[in-house]
Amino acid sequence: MFKVNDNFCNLDQSYLFSEVAKRIASYRVQHPEAEIIRMGIGDVTRPLCPAVISALKKAVEEQGHAETFKGYGPEQGYLFLTEKIAECDYRSRGIEISPDEIFVSDGAKSDTGNIGDILSVNNKVALTDPVYPVYIDTNAMAGRAGEKDARGNWNRIEYLKCSAENNFIPDLPQRDPDIIYLCYPNNPTGTTLNRHQLKKWVDYAIANGSLILFDSAYEAFITEEDVPHSIYEIPGAKKVAIEFRSFSKTAGFTGLRCAYTVIPKELTGVDSCGNTVSINHLWNRRQCTKFNGASYLAQRAAEAVYSTEGQKQIKETINYYLTNASILRDGLNEAGLDAFGGVNAPYIWIKAPEGMGSWEFFSLLLEKCQIASTPGVGFGPSGEGYIRLTAFGSREATLKAIDRLSSLKFE
Amino acid sequence: MFKVNDNFCNLDQSYLFSEVAKRIASYRVQHPEAEIIRMGIGDVTRPLCPAVISALKKAVEEQGHAETFKGYGPEQGYLFLTEKIAECDYRSRGIEISPDEIFVSDGAKSDTGNIGDILSVNNKVALTDPVYPVYIDTNAMAGRAGEKDARGNWNRIEYLKCSAENNFIPDLPQRDPDIIYLCYPNNPTGTTLNRHQLKKWVDYAIANGSLILFDSAYEAFITEEDVPHSIYEIPGAKKVAIEFRSFSKTAGFTGLRCAYTVIPKELTGVDSCGNTVSINHLWNRRQCTKFNGASYLAQRAAEAVYSTEGQKQIKETINYYLTNASILRDGLNEAGLDAFGGVNAPYIWIKAPEGMGSWEFFSLLLEKCQIASTPGVGFGPSGEGYIRLTAFGSREATLKAIDRLSSLKFE
Repeated sequence: MFKVNDNFCNLDQSYLFSEVAKRIASYRVQHPEAEIIRMGIGDVTRPLCPAVISALKKAVEEQGHAETFKGYGPEQGYLFLTEKIAECDYRSRGIEISPDEIFVSDGAKSDTGNIGDILSVNNKVALTDPVYPVYIDTNAMAGRAGEKDARGNWNRIEYLKCSAENNFIPDLPQRDPDIIYLCYPNNPTGTTLNRHQLKKWVDYAIANGSLILFDSAYEAFITEEDVPHSIYEIPGAKKVAIEFRSFSKTAGFTGLRCAYTVIPKELTGVDSCGNTVSINHLWNRRQCTKFNGASYLAQRAAEAVYSTEGQKQIKETINYYLTNASILRDGLNEAGLDAFGGVNAPYIWIKAPEGMGSWEFFSLLLEKCQIASTPGVGFGPSGEGYIRLTAFGSREATLKAIDRLSSLKFE
Repeated sequence: MFKVNDNFCNLDQSYLFSEVAKRIASYRVQHPEAEIIRMGIGDVTRPLCPAVISALKKAVEEQGHAETFKGYGPEQGYLFLTEKIAECDYRSRGIEISPDEIFVSDGAKSDTGNIGDILSVNNKVALTDPVYPVYIDTNAMAGRAGEKDARGNWNRIEYLKCSAENNFIPDLPQRDPDIIYLCYPNNPTGTTLNRHQLKKWVDYAIANGSLILFDSAYEAFITEEDVPHSIYEIPGAKKVAIEFRSFSKTAGFTGLRCAYTVIPKELTGVDSCGNTVSINHLWNRRQCTKFNGASYLAQRAAEAVYSTEGQKQIKETINYYLTNASILRDGLNEAGLDAFGGVNAPYIWIKAPEGMGSWEFFSLLLEKCQIASTPGVGFGPSGEGYIRLTAFGSREATLKAIDRLSSLKFE
């Protein structure tokens, strides 16, 4: 009889956000009249900007005529897009990344999930905790996580604690990890590392031969000068880091699907015999074999994000969300809650009232305020006692949420 | 130092089609004046049909307004699409498949490549030979292929020979495989199995506890009554088979990206302790964790394929390609070559002149006729001495190709 991958059987039954959605749906069935404000899943609500819509219309028109029809594109993405990315996201910040170091895809979730394909299952993983569940789950699926203890923690994964106690600045690892996941601006806490703090990690990786998987999906929300937009701003990072970017939050592409991953040619690993191997080459082989390129429409849309109007329009939307974040944070503080993040990120990370767990706080907000949040413990053990709210709603919904929260008394 | 996945280092340097593209590019540099007819890569050339274009325009419009904007969709695909698929591709043929047995994705290449994630690396694989390289390469990447011998064959993979000698009908396996890849209508040979022949495989899988991975990406090209459109037409197949389908060739979505995979709930495997495990459940967990759903635009476009106009329009295009195939086959026969396939598939499989290898024949066609083909040996050992041509070009290019071929004398 054919066998399944045993590692899947050790996972929780469902992915965090599916579980959250189920609980909300169940509440909705019991309270059909409730007007739930969705601040749980990190999904945008503003429409695609006019520059993107106009590029999409043009691309759709092209697909309707034999002379301009585009079939399979390069698995790595069209040069018209990778050149724009190299120029606008990197060269403009003094970073030299060539188009063939950029791999366009359908999403950063796919890329951060699939990147494990090219890495040995024997590598030890460290990650900041709380963390985007995809990093943990995909390593568990690959057999890199080891055994799960009674609290649900994996014994081969090093959890780097981030909480209000350490100001959400993780200590360097203790267990000599081969792979380190960093996500800054951070999901779920909404906090950041400044240049000096990020440099410690690059230096650590260089000294220890670790690979940094740097997720900067929220880069566009950075407002403070000292927060790096790319890990490659740090000297030496090209030798040790892969950077993941996405148009999902930057330009509202969550339904359109386009992202990219940067793998500098200087980045090398070793095989089990100690031979040096190009990571760019391995990923190219992986993508050419298991992926057929991002949609032509999505790539033309992404290109339009870099136009003058596109840049202006997406910045308006980002500011809209950041204003929501600021309203949320202030309102939460006034309600007597400790709220973090939201300055360089669309996420607010809230400490539950003393003695209350994440799921308990999640239920309280749902039942008393009809606000859907994400329980912090779903992001890892250090998330216990926190919840995450997103600033991606409408202004109206954000104000309504604050109004409802103000009726609760926390101290 | 972090380690790479060693299995990647045993692969050929490049994916077959990248190698073919490189050789053609090199010829083009040497002969800039040559008008090359591209019959190598299986990519469509006809534009998207009007029903699809109109659905895309509507969906783009929706994405430009907050009231109708769609962000993340269900990882499994929108119900509006999975319900259409269940109704039009299955119920209409007397097969009951429920929407939650259907997983919409960005492509059959991704799905046939990623499906290995949920299967044990200890499973033994059998596949028809020649074969779509993705099946072999992705198993090699996962460590399921074993060692490569001097001829480039993997010792843990059972190659089921298909050639003119056995009329391209593979014998049942001898080495008790756990996983069997079948692709019908076949890529690359363009041949098919009839119901009686396919039933032998389903019966074998039931008797031996094997899993059949059935790729029916070319289903829309079937013209003969006795050729099954779905493996689920065969009694018992739901217990042993996963079916992969795509809109790429059916409706020209190679640049748009949409496909789907069917995993019946009756299909179960076992873990290493012998516990029964639902494959549908595992794939759902995989997709929810490593994929963020197919593009909303692509899914609305796919929905339109099932409209009355959509069906009429895609059938016109398919007939156009099938007429090309018929012209090609006849012309090749007249040129003294043995040509197979092309009746229920867009591919023509051609035996090279006596004593000539695949790459040699590839070069001859490129140099003498400026026709780009795909060397059969790239699809596996039994493909040596063959090349593949596709019928996806324009009528004009197809006629020109035949004209050029007629100047060659094969006997």
